[in-house]
Amino acid sequence: MEELKQRILKDGQVLKGDILKVDSFLNHQVDSGLMKRLGEEFARRFKPLKPNKILTAEISGIAPALQAGVALDIPVVFARKLRPVTMPKKVYERRVPSRTKGGETMLLVAADYLSAQDRVVIIDDFLATGQTLNALANIVVEARARLLGFGVVVEKTFEHGRDALDEWGVPLEALVTIERMNQKQIVFR
Amino acid sequence: MEELKQRILKDGQVLKGDILKVDSFLNHQVDSGLMKRLGEEFARRFKPLKPNKILTAEISGIAPALQAGVALDIPVVFARKLRPVTMPKKVYERRVPSRTKGGETMLLVAADYLSAQDRVVIIDDFLATGQTLNALANIVVEARARLLGFGVVVEKTFEHGRDALDEWGVPLEALVTIERMNQKQIVFR
Repeated sequence: MEELKQRILKDGQVLKGDILKVDSFLNHQVDSGLMKRLGEEFARRFKPLKPNKILTAEISGIAPALQAGVALDIPVVFARKLRPVTMPKKVYERRVPSRTKGGETMLLVAADYLSAQDRVVIIDDFLATGQTLNALANIVVEARARLLGFGVVVEKTFEHGRDALDEWGVPLEALVTIERMNQKQIVFR
Repeated sequence: MEELKQRILKDGQVLKGDILKVDSFLNHQVDSGLMKRLGEEFARRFKPLKPNKILTAEISGIAPALQAGVALDIPVVFARKLRPVTMPKKVYERRVPSRTKGGETMLLVAADYLSAQDRVVIIDDFLATGQTLNALANIVVEARARLLGFGVVVEKTFEHGRDALDEWGVPLEALVTIERMNQKQIVFR
C-alpha cells in the first residue's frame, strides 16, 4: 500500500531493538483517514473468504481491526489483556511475551464471543515474531471457530513471523512489508 | 439515540456495583455498524465547534473515539495506560482510580500530540463519576490546547459525573442517558 509506505518513510522512526515507532499516525495518535483506508484494504483482500468476525488484541490492534470490521460490516472481538469484572468465567486465554512493555501479556476472550459458527480473520498492527497472532489463532481453534487468515498493517520480515505462522496454512496479508531497517533507512520489499 | 437504547435494553446486563455490561456490542465484542453510527452522531453534534483533534483513554474509549474521528476526518489521540518503550520523555500524565479493574490507572499522552493549536473534544464510552474525563481535560489544559467539549456513549446520571465536569463550562453530549438501573430494569431519561 503505497500511501502507508510513504507515511512510514515520512513519519516512522526506527528505535533500538528493531522497533518501528509509528506513534504519530498509528499507535498513540491515529490518522483516522489513513486508518479507514487501511481497513478498506483489509476488507478488499479478505472479503472473498467470507469472514463473519474479526479478532484482534488490544491495544494497538483495535484501530485497524475496527476499521476492517466497519468496511466488512462484521463484528470485531478484541482479546483483553486484563480481566475486567464484567468478564464471565468461561474464557479462552493465552500468554505471550510483550516486547514494547516487557514481561508477559495475557490474551483473554470470553467464550460467548467465539463459536463453531465463526469464520475468523485475525488482524493486528505489527507482525514481528508472530507470537501474538499465533496465540490468537490458538484461541480461535480452541473455540472451534474457523481461522481464515491473518492481516497485519506492517510485516517485518527479518523477525520471521511469517515462518512461525506458516503451519496454520491460511493466507497472511501484510499491507506493507519491511525487509530491513535502521536509523538511516527503511527498506520495503 | 434510539438504536443504542434498544440495543442496551436487548443486550445490556446490569452487574453489581452499578456496572452496565455491554461486552457483546461495545466493549469486548464491537458491533462495527453500530459503532460507526455512534461516531457519526458524535460528529453531527460536535462539528459546529470545529474540533481538530479527539482525545480518549484506552482501552474502551478507542472504538467510539476513532469512529468520531473518522466521521469528522480529524486525528484521534488515545491516552495510554502503560508507558511503551516508544514513548518520549515529555509526557502529560494523570492518575485515576479504575473501578472495573481495581487500583489506579495512569493516563499518559506524549507532549508531541497535543499543543496550543489544538481544539479538542474528549470522548469516552461511559460517564460515571467523571474522573477519567476530568483527568483528560486536565491534560488538555496542561498542553495549552483548547477544550471544546465532552462526548460519552452512555451517561449514568446517578453517579453525578455531569456535576463533576460542570466547572469546565463546555458542552457534555451523551448519546444515551440512564437515570436508574437494576437487574430488572434500565430506565433512560
